[in-house]
Amino acid sequence: MMKKKKSDVFKRKLYRIIFRSDTPLGKYFDIALLVLIVVSIVSVFMESISEIRARYMPYIQVLEWGLTICFTIEYALRIYCVRKPMRYIKSFYGVIDLLSILPTYTSVIIAGTQYLVVIRALRLLRVFRVLKLTRYLSEGNILRTALRASFHKITVFLASVITLVTIVGTIMYVVEGEQNGFNNIPTSIYWAIVTITTVGYGDLSPQTSIGQLFASILMIIGYGIIAVPTGIVSVEMAKASENEKPRCRRCQDKIDKPNARFCANCGMLLQAKNQPDV
Amino acid sequence: MMKKKKSDVFKRKLYRIIFRSDTPLGKYFDIALLVLIVVSIVSVFMESISEIRARYMPYIQVLEWGLTICFTIEYALRIYCVRKPMRYIKSFYGVIDLLSILPTYTSVIIAGTQYLVVIRALRLLRVFRVLKLTRYLSEGNILRTALRASFHKITVFLASVITLVTIVGTIMYVVEGEQNGFNNIPTSIYWAIVTITTVGYGDLSPQTSIGQLFASILMIIGYGIIAVPTGIVSVEMAKASENEKPRCRRCQDKIDKPNARFCANCGMLLQAKNQPDV
Amino acid sequence: MMKKKKSDVFKRKLYRIIFRSDTPLGKYFDIALLVLIVVSIVSVFMESISEIRARYMPYIQVLEWGLTICFTIEYALRIYCVRKPMRYIKSFYGVIDLLSILPTYTSVIIAGTQYLVVIRALRLLRVFRVLKLTRYLSEGNILRTALRASFHKITVFLASVITLVTIVGTIMYVVEGEQNGFNNIPTSIYWAIVTITTVGYGDLSPQTSIGQLFASILMIIGYGIIAVPTGIVSVEMAKASENEKPRCRRCQDKIDKPNARFCANCGMLLQAKNQPDV
Amino acid sequence: MMKKKKSDVFKRKLYRIIFRSDTPLGKYFDIALLVLIVVSIVSVFMESISEIRARYMPYIQVLEWGLTICFTIEYALRIYCVRKPMRYIKSFYGVIDLLSILPTYTSVIIAGTQYLVVIRALRLLRVFRVLKLTRYLSEGNILRTALRASFHKITVFLASVITLVTIVGTIMYVVEGEQNGFNNIPTSIYWAIVTITTVGYGDLSPQTSIGQLFASILMIIGYGIIAVPTGIVSVEMAKASENEKPRCRRCQDKIDKPNARFCANCGMLLQAKNQPDV
Repeated sequence: MMKKKKSDVFKRKLYRIIFRSDTPLGKYFDIALLVLIVVSIVSVFMESISEIRARYMPYIQVLEWGLTICFTIEYALRIYCVRKPMRYIKSFYGVIDLLSILPTYTSVIIAGTQYLVVIRALRLLRVFRVLKLTRYLSEGNILRTALRASFHKITVFLASVITLVTIVGTIMYVVEGEQNGFNNIPTSIYWAIVTITTVGYGDLSPQTSIGQLFASILMIIGYGIIAVPTGIVSVEMAKASENEKPRCRRCQDKIDKPNARFCANCGMLLQAKNQPDV
Repeated sequence: MMKKKKSDVFKRKLYRIIFRSDTPLGKYFDIALLVLIVVSIVSVFMESISEIRARYMPYIQVLEWGLTICFTIEYALRIYCVRKPMRYIKSFYGVIDLLSILPTYTSVIIAGTQYLVVIRALRLLRVFRVLKLTRYLSEGNILRTALRASFHKITVFLASVITLVTIVGTIMYVVEGEQNGFNNIPTSIYWAIVTITTVGYGDLSPQTSIGQLFASILMIIGYGIIAVPTGIVSVEMAKASENEKPRCRRCQDKIDKPNARFCANCGMLLQAKNQPDV
Repeated sequence: MMKKKKSDVFKRKLYRIIFRSDTPLGKYFDIALLVLIVVSIVSVFMESISEIRARYMPYIQVLEWGLTICFTIEYALRIYCVRKPMRYIKSFYGVIDLLSILPTYTSVIIAGTQYLVVIRALRLLRVFRVLKLTRYLSEGNILRTALRASFHKITVFLASVITLVTIVGTIMYVVEGEQNGFNNIPTSIYWAIVTITTVGYGDLSPQTSIGQLFASILMIIGYGIIAVPTGIVSVEMAKASENEKPRCRRCQDKIDKPNARFCANCGMLLQAKNQPDV
Repeated sequence: MMKKKKSDVFKRKLYRIIFRSDTPLGKYFDIALLVLIVVSIVSVFMESISEIRARYMPYIQVLEWGLTICFTIEYALRIYCVRKPMRYIKSFYGVIDLLSILPTYTSVIIAGTQYLVVIRALRLLRVFRVLKLTRYLSEGNILRTALRASFHKITVFLASVITLVTIVGTIMYVVEGEQNGFNNIPTSIYWAIVTITTVGYGDLSPQTSIGQLFASILMIIGYGIIAVPTGIVSVEMAKASENEKPRCRRCQDKIDKPNARFCANCGMLLQAKNQPDV
């Protein structure tokens, strides 16, 4: 039993090092992991460049195996030290952690694993956990609230845009036709999306006068309606930002002034902590 | 007379299935219709791809006829079960429903109905009715109110943009000339629209130094004035959103706090329903 | 003297027809003028299309002379019927009116008046007067106030953008060099403007890895700072819109509610006219 | 000692001329400096144009030396007349001033100073000091406050965008492959950035149907999320603009009305100066 307790203490220490960063060891662990992830992403990039692949492939493979073993040990330790391993495994980051190490192992069994490079790029998502980036947002929650509140409006907006590009794409397929590169309706819709989002590759562009007229109208519409989602998000953000104001702990009234020392409603003395630090 | 009443009950039941979705049958009807519309749109897409057309044309034609017969029956049933058939026929969706089935019939009579594919693409608009998408907006009305309120400002804005592209297009026609692809003023205006909306296909681009200077000025203007419609819509949306706040049913005062339990003006107890769910 | 008075009455009538549109004749005059301007602009467009010019040049020239004579008569009448002719001649529209008729006359004297086509395109600006478009804005003045209030901020913003594109353009000239089309610094700056405004013609694009890296950074910066002018204009517009609220005629307090019947400050009964109709 | 005092007076006079512009001499100095900087930048531009370089290189070199000597004298005078020379030398503009003159001198010692042209372009930054442009902003501080307040949100936003383009870039590398120009992952990421920022050069564009589908989704996402930074900055700007309102000097309450004559809280008479002139 004594031994078990020791293991428990060790588990808790390990948990603190791996999942938190409020101890020196935890910070070192985070920095080491960050370096490994960045090295891993860079090696994925390097492997894709044919000149580098031709020369340094063996080295990259050794590096990749080394990194995979490190990440596997890390994954095992995470499962070992959390209280509810299944909950971690099923969590978003648990799945990402597993996916990060799988491709290297499967590449031994199955040949032609070129496609697995995509999965290895997902390692970048782990940077978010290491840097605790999402914490900044969860503090204020403004962005999430704003996006959720404007979800219905954005759905209708997207449905309208998709309908518009489908109809315009079909018109352009009829107007321009296959001789001008608008080979079929899906391609024409692709062109309409390239146009309305103002990307404008130019791989397809209207050649006939009528086609250019329709394209001009589509562009001006696209230019105008870009204001709509911006307006929606701005308004919802202003609202969410309003609701995130600190509240008086006695009367629950919002405190409008950023540095207010007293509640404007009930006169209660507010502590320094009440200041918003968004 | 008894028979007529039966028919009336049947009509009302049918109306509820076709036009509403608050019964299980109504929901099944909506889902079936949605599937048929999507199949129809996909078949329009398929028909336009030359490789697929070469091989599967007979099958697509059979499918198209099947779908058209389904939609014709649906159209007939809609006319049969509504109280005022003419009002439905003249309504927006009534016209769309009719247009959706016409092209297949006319293709028998008149050859070369390639252009009618555009009309068949309009079937996509029917998805909006099935999904009741516009309901989300009509709930809040914010978007519509904002667009109507900013209509005058947007008209002046559009007129200014059109004047600007006409003058800049004419200048570029003179500066660049036909040797650089600016063949005539309409083409130059098309280029100016492509530029000011930041689409930038690159099928036409200034070659002379003076042309590049004018283009640069136009781009920076375009970059700056994109802020104007966004600002207009944002402000009007904020206003409309303000006006859509729930009101106290006794004193008609706006309720500012989202979860207010009492009216801030007259102290009336507000029901839970008063919370905004935009 | 009697005669002079008659002429005065005629002058005033003429003034009302030409400069106003509150009489049936005034409206007919406006419509006729609008038609002539549109015909004039279309004839400028037609003349620039080489196929049409080759065939119909004599007809277009006759049309142009006819339109110029009409506009000359109009210009003479305007000078005749206004009280202070010099003030009209020096006004914005006075100059535009004169410029609209000059090119046709000078084309007789000086050959090679290709460049004057630009001046004839300015006729489009006269549409603004006929449609009284600017009136919509001057009613609220919101746009003008917002733009004037944000003038300083926009100046600094533009100066920063110009500095940024100059420095990035110089860097790209050094990085990419003449072998990749970045022939000189002005061309590189043109490329930087094309990139930062997200136009992206693609006539010039970075070929080297370092160039692509710099271009990527520039694009993300450009994507980010597009928010700045939008934010500036939105905020100023919201402010201006706030200041344009109707005021109580007794206590001069702003009336916040759009349909308020009483002033919230002094309780004065407000007339129906006080409702904002922006 | 008398002499030292004289030198002190001279120093103070010189300081006022060089660093301020509230005397006629100070204004002339500023204008002269502005002209020299503009001439310098134009000469950098001219030198980069091969036709001009071929012909006028000796003249440009003489001009460059003349300008460098002027700027060196100015730099020496600035060091001489400020109270704490080291503080000036280490300041932002001190470093820029030194960098502006270094390239010409080093070009004598080291050959192949083509890269130093970049440093000479930095002279443009000195225009900001001469025109006191940043003063406009520091007056209101609104932009700076807004950007600082939204720093965390923009960091998370940028990190998300970088992660998105990395994953999409990797997907496109796998989908399109080297035969369609997506040679390696860094190039694919470059394409993804070109697409999501709606620049769209078109030097790389998806050729396969699946690639065009992914690209379309990326474009619509890019079109949607452009609203996020705009919303963030707008809201923060509105907040900052709110906090920049003038305050009553007695009770420190914000004065909401732009032209208020009395404080709405304590009734104190406000001076005309209290009006905001943003």
